[in-house]
Amino acid sequence: MAIQIFDTLSRQKQSAFPGAQGRVGMYLCGPTVYGDAHLGNAKTAVAFDVVRRWIEYRGHRVRFVSNVTDVGHITEDALDEGRDRIAERAALERVEPMEIADRFFWKYFDEMGQLNVRRPDVTPRASGHIPQQIELVEELLTRGLAYEADGSVYFRVAAWPGYGKLSRRVIDELAIGTRELAKCSKSDPRDFALWKRAEPSHVQRWKSPWGEGFPGWHLECSAMSLQYLGEGFDIHAGGLDLQFPHHEAEIAQAEGAGRRFSRLWMHGNMLTVNGEKMSRSKGNFITLEAFYAEHDPLLLRFLFVQSHYRATAEVSEETLRAASSGLRRLRDLRRELARRAGGAPPGHAEALEARLAAGRTAFEAAMDDDFDTPAALASLFMLARDLQAALAGPVPEGTIRHALELVVSLGEGVLGLLPPERDAPDAERFDRVIGLLLAERAQHRAGRDYARADALRAGLAAAGIEIEDGPDGVRWTISS
Amino acid sequence: MAIQIFDTLSRQKQSAFPGAQGRVGMYLCGPTVYGDAHLGNAKTAVAFDVVRRWIEYRGHRVRFVSNVTDVGHITEDALDEGRDRIAERAALERVEPMEIADRFFWKYFDEMGQLNVRRPDVTPRASGHIPQQIELVEELLTRGLAYEADGSVYFRVAAWPGYGKLSRRVIDELAIGTRELAKCSKSDPRDFALWKRAEPSHVQRWKSPWGEGFPGWHLECSAMSLQYLGEGFDIHAGGLDLQFPHHEAEIAQAEGAGRRFSRLWMHGNMLTVNGEKMSRSKGNFITLEAFYAEHDPLLLRFLFVQSHYRATAEVSEETLRAASSGLRRLRDLRRELARRAGGAPPGHAEALEARLAAGRTAFEAAMDDDFDTPAALASLFMLARDLQAALAGPVPEGTIRHALELVVSLGEGVLGLLPPERDAPDAERFDRVIGLLLAERAQHRAGRDYARADALRAGLAAAGIEIEDGPDGVRWTISS
Repeated sequence: MAIQIFDTLSRQKQSAFPGAQGRVGMYLCGPTVYGDAHLGNAKTAVAFDVVRRWIEYRGHRVRFVSNVTDVGHITEDALDEGRDRIAERAALERVEPMEIADRFFWKYFDEMGQLNVRRPDVTPRASGHIPQQIELVEELLTRGLAYEADGSVYFRVAAWPGYGKLSRRVIDELAIGTRELAKCSKSDPRDFALWKRAEPSHVQRWKSPWGEGFPGWHLECSAMSLQYLGEGFDIHAGGLDLQFPHHEAEIAQAEGAGRRFSRLWMHGNMLTVNGEKMSRSKGNFITLEAFYAEHDPLLLRFLFVQSHYRATAEVSEETLRAASSGLRRLRDLRRELARRAGGAPPGHAEALEARLAAGRTAFEAAMDDDFDTPAALASLFMLARDLQAALAGPVPEGTIRHALELVVSLGEGVLGLLPPERDAPDAERFDRVIGLLLAERAQHRAGRDYARADALRAGLAAAGIEIEDGPDGVRWTISS
Repeated sequence: MAIQIFDTLSRQKQSAFPGAQGRVGMYLCGPTVYGDAHLGNAKTAVAFDVVRRWIEYRGHRVRFVSNVTDVGHITEDALDEGRDRIAERAALERVEPMEIADRFFWKYFDEMGQLNVRRPDVTPRASGHIPQQIELVEELLTRGLAYEADGSVYFRVAAWPGYGKLSRRVIDELAIGTRELAKCSKSDPRDFALWKRAEPSHVQRWKSPWGEGFPGWHLECSAMSLQYLGEGFDIHAGGLDLQFPHHEAEIAQAEGAGRRFSRLWMHGNMLTVNGEKMSRSKGNFITLEAFYAEHDPLLLRFLFVQSHYRATAEVSEETLRAASSGLRRLRDLRRELARRAGGAPPGHAEALEARLAAGRTAFEAAMDDDFDTPAALASLFMLARDLQAALAGPVPEGTIRHALELVVSLGEGVLGLLPPERDAPDAERFDRVIGLLLAERAQHRAGRDYARADALRAGLAAAGIEIEDGPDGVRWTISS
């Protein structure tokens, strides 16, 4: 079965790669590197990391391009003065703007790495593609879709009939919703900047046919996606908040210049924190740094994967607790399978093998249907439950290995929830040391020295290790 | 005392920052991202990471800029055809050249991170600074120091009398040492390319006043160091192999265009492997990936720090063994101090405090003298020996804390040899679990059950943990 993708442009599911040969080209709008990444950035990044992994699982090679905005992201309040966010922060800290950009560039990718989000194949930076952006502006000027005013260049929205087709806004109504900017040189408030004149104090500036300036924010994504993916590439993705005006402007810039742009558009939904939209003004704005200081980053990934990328995800103590227990079940299963793989008798258990195959099929069907991760995860958990039940008895080695491969392939390869545990040799050493302690305790119990046995259990509990006596022996877990 | 730096240009030690106010600007030639980093890259990176840390230790703010060459590094054998290394590798793998560049970009910085090398403040990429490079070429053309030939632009070495002053080569003799290139459009074999015409097959290409092409390799470092550090910046650093022609060309490009260039030049020496220069042809070429597969990356850092940056460093089983034991001594000392800090009696031990102060002074004097890390490390080890001796008896808590701070400040803050151990909570848990086992063993011994005590010791040894009974109790170490 082919992957079906809900395309925002046509508002329906499309067969994704009908005759795809070679690479699938995918572009994701990345971060503006002027400050800390937050939970919303993480949701978008995780959503399309899973999409990328699934397309690869289905046998395609993906070229995943995601940009970094290190110049030109103009704050709403400063539109008329042409200040941009990075320059503002740099002025505040009296440093080179690129120092700010680089600091948050590294921080962003470090934090995404902790979420097990894979790095893009190409990470183009806006400041690194000025000539390409200037060329695109020149093309739009030639075609009469742009005009220069006072050293800046604007896209003439009224001259391009396609404007509004992605967000399905009626452009005649847009003027009403757009604040009139007295100081601005635009001839129509709906028009957007392709190139901004640099004021004398502006550090990030380049020569252009219109004087020294810097690119408008929307421009880079049209120029860089086309450069690294070619015309008519497969998927353009981003957060829902970018649909208008950013993505609308991207289409106008690219198609206005006569280039075929992205075939499919995907948008990830936002999140809520304790039931409310996250925002700085509401005081529920959470950076990844703050989140990671209190929680395992993969809890967040689990929580996002549990909801569909087109749905909102709720972050609260309750959903995090549920994520924690879900993640632990998957990790325990993987660990248990890895432990059992060694000593089991050879051979295969046919009924269980059939169960594995059915589990994989259910998972695949869910993912093929517009990346339905909640359904895929549910099928993985049903499989996990059946596997745990089967592991109460003897299971032959071949089947244990198949089960382990399947859990790792789907849980880590596709969903990214089970990265290899760090310091594997140390983990093994730890297991052996715990094993020695449990043997000590068993000897105390055998010798009816329950006081010492209980003292050992208490000592382990104090170190955060819980032991549990069961019919198949003692199990231990790290409780904190 | 002020820092003295051996300046390659003047061939003598210079007072580094006589009236430095504000930032110290430092530029280091970084990697060409077309393949795996090797031990030589690591030596250079560690050398100037320590230099940067020491300048900061002395109270200066440093802006550390280090470039990434992602276009234009022309291979020697392909000079005449204008092929570059990244494009060659990309053609081989049928991918976008920027995909190769980005892959090795991330790998390089991941591997440097494992060496505890801090990231630059700004990491400019050659492909991201094309307009700035074109501007510099135009300036050199205007000044008659460059000429266009067949779509390429060359620097006219004979027209700039300063050429050769860094490497102290006599330029009239250079022609003899330079291979005559029949197909090349240069008018003098000593001239070097500022801009190369792109052949039709060349993917990385930009428009320029001379047609489509790409910058010569030397050009980026002149343009980007001046852009991010300003004229007359403090230090330009790099490996000794870059002194000629790369650094010589950088000076010619910058000063030829009328800009004051770097005030001081620093060059790190190369390394030997088993007594021989490392080279691909000798078969002793070692990538960091290969090294890390077998060794703790910090062994390499320790080994480099043990020799002066202007001396060669020898990598062999023997020097690695020595590094391993040295590193372990420092780690043991830090761990011991951290353990003892909790339970010690309050107060300070004056004699030991004086010893700490003397140790710091000796370390500082060595580092101020052109970053004499071997001498600094030797003074740290003498201090470590005295501290270990003192720790055999009681030491008050205040002094233990001072000692710990000093060891961390010099050993980690300056030399970068003692980064916080990963998974600190797990390490603590591990310590507690081992503590429980040692208590069990002590009880067996107290009960004269030597068989069980010895079985525990054997079990720990099997898990790679050695225990040693001493006068102050039992010590344990991880042996593998």
